[in-house]
Amino acid sequence: MSTMNTPAYAELTRLQRQIYQFLHVSKIIGWDRNAMMPAKGNEARAAAEAEVDAHIHALRTSPAQRELLDRAEGENLGEIERANLREMRREWRLANALPESLVKEIALAGARCEHAWRTQRKANDWAGFLPNLREVIRLARQEARLLADATGLSPYEAMMDRFEPGMSTAELDRIFGDLKTWLPPFIANVRAKQSTEEIIEPAGPFPVAKQRELSLAVVRLLGFDFEAGRLDESAHPFNGGVPEDIRMTTRYDESDCTRSLMSTIHETGHARYEQNLPREWLGQPLGRARSSAIHESMSLSMEMQLARSRAFVGLLAPMLARVYGEQPAFEPGNLYRYFTRIKSTNRIRVAADECNYPLHVILRYEIERPLIEGAIECEDIPALWNEKMQSMLGLDTRDDFNNGSMQDVHWSEGLVGYFPTYTLGAMYAAQWYATIRKATPDLDSHIAAGNLAPAFDWIRANIWSQARRWQTAELATRASGETLNGEHFKAHLERRYLG
Amino acid sequence: MSTMNTPAYAELTRLQRQIYQFLHVSKIIGWDRNAMMPAKGNEARAAAEAEVDAHIHALRTSPAQRELLDRAEGENLGEIERANLREMRREWRLANALPESLVKEIALAGARCEHAWRTQRKANDWAGFLPNLREVIRLARQEARLLADATGLSPYEAMMDRFEPGMSTAELDRIFGDLKTWLPPFIANVRAKQSTEEIIEPAGPFPVAKQRELSLAVVRLLGFDFEAGRLDESAHPFNGGVPEDIRMTTRYDESDCTRSLMSTIHETGHARYEQNLPREWLGQPLGRARSSAIHESMSLSMEMQLARSRAFVGLLAPMLARVYGEQPAFEPGNLYRYFTRIKSTNRIRVAADECNYPLHVILRYEIERPLIEGAIECEDIPALWNEKMQSMLGLDTRDDFNNGSMQDVHWSEGLVGYFPTYTLGAMYAAQWYATIRKATPDLDSHIAAGNLAPAFDWIRANIWSQARRWQTAELATRASGETLNGEHFKAHLERRYLG
Repeated sequence: MSTMNTPAYAELTRLQRQIYQFLHVSKIIGWDRNAMMPAKGNEARAAAEAEVDAHIHALRTSPAQRELLDRAEGENLGEIERANLREMRREWRLANALPESLVKEIALAGARCEHAWRTQRKANDWAGFLPNLREVIRLARQEARLLADATGLSPYEAMMDRFEPGMSTAELDRIFGDLKTWLPPFIANVRAKQSTEEIIEPAGPFPVAKQRELSLAVVRLLGFDFEAGRLDESAHPFNGGVPEDIRMTTRYDESDCTRSLMSTIHETGHARYEQNLPREWLGQPLGRARSSAIHESMSLSMEMQLARSRAFVGLLAPMLARVYGEQPAFEPGNLYRYFTRIKSTNRIRVAADECNYPLHVILRYEIERPLIEGAIECEDIPALWNEKMQSMLGLDTRDDFNNGSMQDVHWSEGLVGYFPTYTLGAMYAAQWYATIRKATPDLDSHIAAGNLAPAFDWIRANIWSQARRWQTAELATRASGETLNGEHFKAHLERRYLG
Repeated sequence: MSTMNTPAYAELTRLQRQIYQFLHVSKIIGWDRNAMMPAKGNEARAAAEAEVDAHIHALRTSPAQRELLDRAEGENLGEIERANLREMRREWRLANALPESLVKEIALAGARCEHAWRTQRKANDWAGFLPNLREVIRLARQEARLLADATGLSPYEAMMDRFEPGMSTAELDRIFGDLKTWLPPFIANVRAKQSTEEIIEPAGPFPVAKQRELSLAVVRLLGFDFEAGRLDESAHPFNGGVPEDIRMTTRYDESDCTRSLMSTIHETGHARYEQNLPREWLGQPLGRARSSAIHESMSLSMEMQLARSRAFVGLLAPMLARVYGEQPAFEPGNLYRYFTRIKSTNRIRVAADECNYPLHVILRYEIERPLIEGAIECEDIPALWNEKMQSMLGLDTRDDFNNGSMQDVHWSEGLVGYFPTYTLGAMYAAQWYATIRKATPDLDSHIAAGNLAPAFDWIRANIWSQARRWQTAELATRASGETLNGEHFKAHLERRYLG
């Protein structure tokens, strides 16, 4: 980016690079805390991380930016620089929307609630959880109001806008309303069809060392650059680090050889997005991943569109047999049925299959939105949860908070407005692969031959390399000729499960 | 520490805690770079580390401290607070002694010289190394002059003072002059005695997994707290992290089962010092390790005084046999002879035994001091090196720069004034153990029975828990009744090698 004769813009880019260096540090020590740090390191680390976060916040809200942003608008900037300036302004607005005292209150209440939740969930202790949650939601409502003031959006939209800028509740209602209509009867049809299918389950145990070996091989096949990242283990799998040095984690369960594998493939989708963000924009807001839904579309492109396709399962089958020894479960046809089996008895979102998953998300959206808007209170959650779980998924979660309204970490931390991005991501992923399949009609034979380039080349050109150059709707239109269109997701599920 | 009615002092402690948080971050990402980071992460990491370092420097030199330090002198402080204030002032003086432009020039020239040295050393390329070294030494002389101005010390003393405050060249000349007199004939006697001893060398290979298992067991036996630290692997073993979360590293060589073990034991000595610094002072200069020589006395107490003692080797022998299988080399008497064998043909300092090691250090001191004082130039180093190596150690290093004057990384990075602390540390270690043996005459039978508490309890009470409460001479006097006394080192070597 040329910054000659653009002194205000140039100054802003310098500040952004500085913020980026401290974000780097924050990301690496955050990864370390989850993947490496011994237990007694926690207190000192928490203090160090808080200090770094406070410094980043101070840089993000440094008052000189207000004038620099205005002056930069009048400078002679190219289209790329204008896009970067738009993202700078957005970050500035978000960083300044909340008073620091509220940010600290939110962090404190969230940490307290989340910490207690870990044991309360296992103890099925809704009564113990409720007062903490009330405080978290009380603060989240304040946050939503202030963000709404800063953005001109509705409170829920303003919360969601942090993760998914440009998405409106009107569009969400349309998309989710549509899903709610066709998904339940569709799932019933799939269950009827699958009820006659025989499936042989892989027989364990599966030693951790072998799972690790297989994971590394599959992650390599999927193009992850191990010269610019690592795969380690942690209690909860996550994607950490920085684009130049990605730190994925997974968790191995010796009784199950596929859960960690699929989780790792999912993380690889996130990881490759980050690893392939345009190098020349790194350090600038422009160079970051577009949005949470687009990020999720990358992990679900990898896991749901690619890895659970019949062609890719054909690649996985001999790898599994080589690592664990031959067994009937690894016959490609059986393995494909195993990877695409839907389990409608699952009350847990994170264990749900791709057909049921959207219903779990819609349920949460239909609770957290009125909750933020003040139409319902925390004490109303269990009854609503049970009612919706019964009507949408046909499952009974009464008195089972552990597998019901206490199952997710999100609300305990005040993370409201994030859930929808999971399903938007699944829908975008289907849309991307529909476009890829149009461009490469024999995609499956390429995949079956181990040639993943047609898919990855398209994704690189249309998503990875674009970072935040375009707002989400335009990114989608440039990539696939249209904004988000739920028909692709529906077509994908119909083809895979009823085709 | 009470900080009521001491507003200037209280403000200084707040600033120190803030500096400590960023040092924490710097230490963890530094460990990560050496032990975890993939190659392509380097450029972004260097930028992030530089930004953190610049921020720490800015905090350390924040101008408000000048007046706060003066005001705090007049406040009603206890003895502990006075000691902390003394250390604060020292850190302030060091941080402000050099203009930032020179600090950057030094870092740049050192990084360039060190980077080229890695290949030049292997290529025996003194001519290629010389121009880089000249620039490094030119800057080191400027640094020494400025530090001398700030401290009132001579230039070499001022360089050494950063690591070993209170040590003078006059005392060093006396100590080293003494060692130079008695060590060479002593070594000749030991060689004569050992020439008739039979030693069976352990027979490899020694698989890395088994070495790791043994290292973990020995480090645990030595009291390292794995809930507050880790042992990993890196190209060069080091001690990283923070007192609350120590990160040791080692490196395994499948052909040698003892080198990595002894290196790990050495690092454990450093690590336990840090792990046992007084918790209530952490975050303040008072709470840091006393000096480089005292730090080295902790690692050498562990490695040379404890681990190579006949009693401790008796503990190690069955552990080695259990991990690698029985072999004649693991007979305790043989193993002890193996661990105390002196090798006077070794031209490499880091591989030298404890008898020869001081001569390697003195040689370097006798070159780097006149070099900093301007009495000799970089081109004079090889001839001086060869002459001293011949006269002190009887070894020929002519034309062998790789095993001669290019073997150490120190000078390439401009690290002058550090070498003496290795030998001062060895001498302090001997003095500590002489004191411990006086208090516990049957120390060896305790050690042989696996009871290391008499040694560690003394060290905890006299060294670890004292941190920087006393200046070094007073620390030594309080611990052992006298300042550094080289007779203990001599007596230790005589007892072990000629006893």
